[in-house]
Amino acid sequence: MLLGLALTACAAQPRAAAAPSASEPVTIAAVPPVFQYLYGSGEAVALDRQAYNSLVDAVRRRLAGERADPGAQRTSAVLAPTATIDQPLTLPCGDKPRAVVFDVDETLLLNLGYEYDEATHQGRPYDETRWTRWEQTGVDMVAAVPGALWAVDELRRLGVVVVFNSNRSAANAAFTEAALDHAGLGPAKHGDTLWLKGDLGSGSGKDSRRQAIAERYCVVAMGGDQLGDFSDLFTGLPQERRAKAEAPAIWGMWGRFWFVLPNPVYGSGLKGSADEVFPADKRWSDPGGKQ
Amino acid sequence: MLLGLALTACAAQPRAAAAPSASEPVTIAAVPPVFQYLYGSGEAVALDRQAYNSLVDAVRRRLAGERADPGAQRTSAVLAPTATIDQPLTLPCGDKPRAVVFDVDETLLLNLGYEYDEATHQGRPYDETRWTRWEQTGVDMVAAVPGALWAVDELRRLGVVVVFNSNRSAANAAFTEAALDHAGLGPAKHGDTLWLKGDLGSGSGKDSRRQAIAERYCVVAMGGDQLGDFSDLFTGLPQERRAKAEAPAIWGMWGRFWFVLPNPVYGSGLKGSADEVFPADKRWSDPGGKQ
Repeated sequence: MLLGLALTACAAQPRAAAAPSASEPVTIAAVPPVFQYLYGSGEAVALDRQAYNSLVDAVRRRLAGERADPGAQRTSAVLAPTATIDQPLTLPCGDKPRAVVFDVDETLLLNLGYEYDEATHQGRPYDETRWTRWEQTGVDMVAAVPGALWAVDELRRLGVVVVFNSNRSAANAAFTEAALDHAGLGPAKHGDTLWLKGDLGSGSGKDSRRQAIAERYCVVAMGGDQLGDFSDLFTGLPQERRAKAEAPAIWGMWGRFWFVLPNPVYGSGLKGSADEVFPADKRWSDPGGKQ
Repeated sequence: MLLGLALTACAAQPRAAAAPSASEPVTIAAVPPVFQYLYGSGEAVALDRQAYNSLVDAVRRRLAGERADPGAQRTSAVLAPTATIDQPLTLPCGDKPRAVVFDVDETLLLNLGYEYDEATHQGRPYDETRWTRWEQTGVDMVAAVPGALWAVDELRRLGVVVVFNSNRSAANAAFTEAALDHAGLGPAKHGDTLWLKGDLGSGSGKDSRRQAIAERYCVVAMGGDQLGDFSDLFTGLPQERRAKAEAPAIWGMWGRFWFVLPNPVYGSGLKGSADEVFPADKRWSDPGGKQ
């Protein structure tokens, strides 16, 4: 709907533009719209709850179907190493224990403390050493994403193993285990139910960890806030990534095997010039505006 | 995941801060992150497809359940006039024809032309007369939200009536009917399947129109990008709206009867100072940063 159009990102820019230098906090009014939306809106809560309700309902139906027809072949939500966007083959499940694989940051955990520091120091470039300090000292300044606690508890009650696949650093595994415990999402055990950047010599790509998890478990669903939380195939320029996400053999996965949480604050989706973001044939010029 | 943290809203602010005066386009690099996310990210496509897959799957199950047990009492996804957040009573359905009620803008339609003009004129305040010009002259510069065409076609194939409840102006009804037709989402007929701001003397609140629709139809699901697309009860400050969206009697509606599309670009969710957005006990200060 259009109520509140006055509060657009555009309208917010001049306030952001008024932000002072990185070392001093900006005025409270200047909190950027991406933070207002993800951490301050009921709409984001609704998207979060929708994702977790849909995920748990889908797993319940899957388990009921397996009980009703034990002989049927079941496939994993993890793509096979040979999968492509046009032929996204999934791995067979066999009798492996059932699991759901979740990303952590802005999927299960809201990094409220870190993003408050970011929101009050606008214009400051990303600093990997700052994020490392956050992993080590922010353990008690996170909160569970709305619906995440309920979903994780319900899945475990159903006998499904909850596995975490995060790009937090393997070197900080103990802190991430503690952060998940603090938020009530634990237990997470590094090397068993917690997989991190650096494990198996991995970089930010998560496929190698997904394959290792799929060797132990039948992954019935995955949850994440970035396309890379589901497959490393979602590469390319903005419109290429969009085309891949709704490719004929891919789009049916969303809300059925793959469950997405909203995150406009950071990540692979925040790329592109106006020419890359807006189609060439959809560029209106206000006939009543200054030419 | 954390890959791409460098591309945060914060990192984008200095570019926005460099935006020139409202009358001249900004540099292409300055497209704000909310536009990159909604119109340029594969993550938004995945959220859209997830919402529409979940909605259609839920309606299919609902209709199958009704066929299997025709006698059972069915309730509407529309709340009763006496409903509260604690007691969200829904209307009985009886034998009325089944319908799904959708918001239009950033739910079924992406206003690409209008938002391109906004993105290239940052700092310009919202102008209602500009939006009116957009409703009248932007009919061919919209596109269907990913998944919307499939969902609308599938619902109609299932015998479900598609009803539109938008805050576009009743005075521009013919233009909005044309925009929906252009995007392939029609037919929409004002006063029958298209309800607009001004109908029934309504303002931006949609409850009066929802009640009128529910008198004719059994509404099995609703779709929207704003909490007001589901009920006018979601009022208040940011954290109040969040609490209402996940109230004990409300949160089970998301992804089951109420389906949310992402929209960080405009709307009721883009409010709040840092103090209103971030909890007081979740404010980290980088121990390695300037004090």
